[in-house]
Amino acid sequence: MQDLYPTRCSGEPELLARQEPVARRAWEPGAPLTAGQIEQFDRDGYLVLEGLFSEAEIAVLQAEMGRLLSDPAGLKDETVITERGSREVRSIFEIHGQSAMLARLAADERLAGVASYLLDDEVYIHQSRLNYKPGFEGKEFYWHSDFETWHAEDGMPRMRALSMSVLLAENTPNNGPLMVIPGSQRVYVTCVGETPDDHYKHSLRKQEYGVPDEDSLAELAHRHGIVAPTGKPGTVVVFDCNVMHGSNGNITPFPRSNAFFVFNAVSNRLAAPFAARKPRPGFIAARDAEPIVPVAGHLEGQEAGAGA
Amino acid sequence: MQDLYPTRCSGEPELLARQEPVARRAWEPGAPLTAGQIEQFDRDGYLVLEGLFSEAEIAVLQAEMGRLLSDPAGLKDETVITERGSREVRSIFEIHGQSAMLARLAADERLAGVASYLLDDEVYIHQSRLNYKPGFEGKEFYWHSDFETWHAEDGMPRMRALSMSVLLAENTPNNGPLMVIPGSQRVYVTCVGETPDDHYKHSLRKQEYGVPDEDSLAELAHRHGIVAPTGKPGTVVVFDCNVMHGSNGNITPFPRSNAFFVFNAVSNRLAAPFAARKPRPGFIAARDAEPIVPVAGHLEGQEAGAGA
Repeated sequence: MQDLYPTRCSGEPELLARQEPVARRAWEPGAPLTAGQIEQFDRDGYLVLEGLFSEAEIAVLQAEMGRLLSDPAGLKDETVITERGSREVRSIFEIHGQSAMLARLAADERLAGVASYLLDDEVYIHQSRLNYKPGFEGKEFYWHSDFETWHAEDGMPRMRALSMSVLLAENTPNNGPLMVIPGSQRVYVTCVGETPDDHYKHSLRKQEYGVPDEDSLAELAHRHGIVAPTGKPGTVVVFDCNVMHGSNGNITPFPRSNAFFVFNAVSNRLAAPFAARKPRPGFIAARDAEPIVPVAGHLEGQEAGAGA
Repeated sequence: MQDLYPTRCSGEPELLARQEPVARRAWEPGAPLTAGQIEQFDRDGYLVLEGLFSEAEIAVLQAEMGRLLSDPAGLKDETVITERGSREVRSIFEIHGQSAMLARLAADERLAGVASYLLDDEVYIHQSRLNYKPGFEGKEFYWHSDFETWHAEDGMPRMRALSMSVLLAENTPNNGPLMVIPGSQRVYVTCVGETPDDHYKHSLRKQEYGVPDEDSLAELAHRHGIVAPTGKPGTVVVFDCNVMHGSNGNITPFPRSNAFFVFNAVSNRLAAPFAARKPRPGFIAARDAEPIVPVAGHLEGQEAGAGA
């Protein structure tokens, strides 16, 4: 397979042009987004959706988060990632496989339906996780393009995937919210250095390969600026797989948490990694591309869903 | 001398009431601030002053900062503090003693005159420094009350001091700006643990004693919220000596820098430390309380000032 986005193979970083569109489908009657929203996603590489969920739905999701965080012993060991230097849980991976409620959330037409429209294809979950950034000592997450890692280490061929972060605690400007460089999704910043074997065992805590260089980051930030979308619980932040993003640490007493889903186009399913000897395990990068059938209706109650 | 604010002497932290006013002088005709500004400082414990300096004055201050940062060899060794884990300069202390321009800035009536009015006394510089927080890897500065340290380690008897931070680079919500808990200046959070000898040699990089407990911080933040004043170069942030403040790290490419002056009332000059065996050295906490004579006029050019 031709490698459109070579990375981790040269001693010097490069800024390459994206080879394909961001929003794959223009607005049509019946679209789940407005024309303005689709244009904004295409231009800025991210979109904030508010008011999608009722108060009751948000409460149900927060309760499910509390249940999972308080009983990690009930989860697959390898999917539970602790904060470096502590036993505090930072992320739980493969939540759509371990929680019927979060599987139902992922499949909801308000998420999967929107993802499918923007990517103009059926979609499946490439990765899911619950993120919990504690108050007082939340660590930063350095700048990166998700796609660079998914391409290099997982074998994702093209930029036809997006992420959705469902906020489960309020994001303020001060508690280490997601920061995005709007427009950066049109530039592919190649990274330097070969991927070591089993890199993922460390990179989930602190990334050392697939890290963009400071000159490229400064150029992008000076050109496009930096935005940090904030919002109340229930807000959904959608962002393109190649937009440059990161987050500062959090010394405030206010923790941050979100349920995080990566939707990939079925036509973009994983191949062999482009810059690693063996692919990462399935709980980080699904190799089974079973399409989601979007589900309508409220999350509350126990409707039949795509449950685990 | 009676200790109104005992700290570092009990195994449990306490929230004590402040024993004295914040703004010491009500508005009168000819005051250097408006009545609203004085009330805000009294209520919130901080105040943002914009437009005090001309573009030319700001350029002169930035050039002086560049000169000092690029030639630390010309400065007293002990006053130059590097970032932990690197040789990057984080702070230069006693700048009013090492730069005629910054001595002139400190004595300017726009700073010293305002400090003198709010504290209702003649003032002197208790501490001054130039802070430089680099982009990409700026570290956080955890929550603290300055007064707790100045009282415990320097022997400052009462809460009759304030700080002024003159921004020399833009503070945005994203590059680790000063965060303040407005109103927290009315509560004294006692800290736990005895001060080790020569604590200052480490605490200028990372504080381990004089650190408020998480429960007290959470209570204050939930009660009052958190604000992060932002502004362009030349903005002056004034804050009370006891207001709880800190800052997150900074992964953005945009560095932060400011010139920082602590004004203390002459009547509040230092006594023996209240919770340490020996006082910190003079470049951190001046024991000579020579009053400043405020100077009028522009900073540019080389007018006679209170220069070093």
